[in-house]
Amino acid sequence: MAGKGLLLKADPIAAAFRQEVKNSLAAAPRKPRLVGILATSSAPSKFYAEFTRKQCEELGFEFVLKKTGAADTGELAEGEGVEQAIIEANDDPDVDGIMVYYPIFGAQQDHYLQQVVSPYKDVEGLHFKFHYNLYHNIRFIEPQSLLTTGIPSTDAAGVIESEDPPPGTVKSIIPCTPLAIVKCLEHIGVYNKILPYGDRAYGRTITVINRSEVVGRPLAALLANDGARVFSVDIDSIQEYTKRPKTATARKYNPRHVVHPCSSTLQECLALSDVVISAVPTADYKVKTEWLKDGCICVNVAADKNFESDVREKAAMYIPAVGKVTILMLLRNLLRLQQYK
Amino acid sequence: MAGKGLLLKADPIAAAFRQEVKNSLAAAPRKPRLVGILATSSAPSKFYAEFTRKQCEELGFEFVLKKTGAADTGELAEGEGVEQAIIEANDDPDVDGIMVYYPIFGAQQDHYLQQVVSPYKDVEGLHFKFHYNLYHNIRFIEPQSLLTTGIPSTDAAGVIESEDPPPGTVKSIIPCTPLAIVKCLEHIGVYNKILPYGDRAYGRTITVINRSEVVGRPLAALLANDGARVFSVDIDSIQEYTKRPKTATARKYNPRHVVHPCSSTLQECLALSDVVISAVPTADYKVKTEWLKDGCICVNVAADKNFESDVREKAAMYIPAVGKVTILMLLRNLLRLQQYK
Repeated sequence: MAGKGLLLKADPIAAAFRQEVKNSLAAAPRKPRLVGILATSSAPSKFYAEFTRKQCEELGFEFVLKKTGAADTGELAEGEGVEQAIIEANDDPDVDGIMVYYPIFGAQQDHYLQQVVSPYKDVEGLHFKFHYNLYHNIRFIEPQSLLTTGIPSTDAAGVIESEDPPPGTVKSIIPCTPLAIVKCLEHIGVYNKILPYGDRAYGRTITVINRSEVVGRPLAALLANDGARVFSVDIDSIQEYTKRPKTATARKYNPRHVVHPCSSTLQECLALSDVVISAVPTADYKVKTEWLKDGCICVNVAADKNFESDVREKAAMYIPAVGKVTILMLLRNLLRLQQYK
Repeated sequence: MAGKGLLLKADPIAAAFRQEVKNSLAAAPRKPRLVGILATSSAPSKFYAEFTRKQCEELGFEFVLKKTGAADTGELAEGEGVEQAIIEANDDPDVDGIMVYYPIFGAQQDHYLQQVVSPYKDVEGLHFKFHYNLYHNIRFIEPQSLLTTGIPSTDAAGVIESEDPPPGTVKSIIPCTPLAIVKCLEHIGVYNKILPYGDRAYGRTITVINRSEVVGRPLAALLANDGARVFSVDIDSIQEYTKRPKTATARKYNPRHVVHPCSSTLQECLALSDVVISAVPTADYKVKTEWLKDGCICVNVAADKNFESDVREKAAMYIPAVGKVTILMLLRNLLRLQQYK
């Protein structure tokens, strides 16, 4: 029967994490304080700031919204004062986590700001230290390593035998949005729990559309580190991420996962893909339903819908938004960072 | 007399620094080794790598070119292996400086790579630590501060009384290209040596066309930190950088220099500008000669010429390229970093 695939809202997935976060919060030494920094007049950023407040209040976190730039007063320009606001929150011992509502200045200058946030308060996981660990499949770190600019030897990644950090180490922080997507895929069975930890996406072919440093590239790396074959699709190229490289040369160049150029077209990648994740920040981008593999799983991460309205004619499951899971990953990171300090 | 302005090649400016670098090299504990990392098939990058080698050999530095990606073999893709090559150079105690030939993957992923380079070997000055110091006018640092992710308090900037670092501190590293431009402006008298150090561009109005994190924004900040009024022109906005903000609100938001939005057009900015610096990386962008202020100084930083061929009908001086000074700034940084370790 050519029926409609399942529409999966993120709520039931979020519910499981909401309980976990509540339990961790109850065990926390004190109620963690999250500072949100809103520096633009952007309606989606303002909306997301209010959403953060609501979630924090419901769960019992303290949330303080600091407005600056055009969000504060017409006298200030878009983004004005945002760096100073981050520095003040870094220096304030009562602040446990900092969330900045991007985009502000554009990718390059925003990337600079992401390094200004102290890694000990970086609930979004956007600091270079965390990206480096992710790209190198370094899952466990010594908490004091966040103090140094030095990068760990890639040997530190080693063999992953368990989900639990070895003594003296803690889990590295993973950027919230890619992490939320992985958690959704775990929840709906894309990750196979019978396989060993660290390789549970082995056998899956996944297309990720977007290769930004905030969503697409870390997500492709996370999925490849977990064993998946990933097609990373950007506006001008397609790459294949895998931790099972076929040649010795390829293995030499990245001991964790390797990235190959890929000569397939998007249509060819989609025809092979068990999962399609799209995060293209434009309203008019749509993944063609006719190109999807019958019975695949589609996940929309963009604010606008990147899938056509008939996506469930081909997709067995469709997750239209992951924001409700993302905020819980952020709060989970907040609770962890409070311990790491 | 409506004569032609002076055409100033960078050679005589470079000559003064060549001698300074030679003297420092003679006093160095050992010949510093610079590793160049070439990871693409880009002709300009290859050319620049050969230029680096030639300059190093002429001056007596050791230069090793490490090729990877498409620069190495057809088996590898553009950029493949570049991160691993950086990590190996970081870990090699015989390497004193690392230079990576950008662009490789585009601004976002290249920015990530710039954080992988150890700040102790970052002769290009592209690590976040150096950008932060520059944007906050922190000129002198404790060398061990490069070890930590923590950012210095903005109080560290303090009052600048002398060009010489206070005891226990060294000069922060400044990105080569913006620094080379400042050195050119010093050489031709835009900086006034009668004014106190740290304020020698006071009274000058300067337009900088480009606001990338590699050239335009650090340059605008450097010039504003030195007292100039700077118009920073990007494709979609114009900002004014100054350390003499007119309002208390503006002063509050950045104690070093402030950035205001600016409602003037490029034509209006150019009409006020004593100096015009353009670094637009496209062949067809040209600053209109008719918009220039009569007697101004023009500096082209782009690989392609951003000024019209008749620029000297209005400009009193025109510097068509600064690359020969840039490489000397890089070698000066190399000698300094060798000491900082």
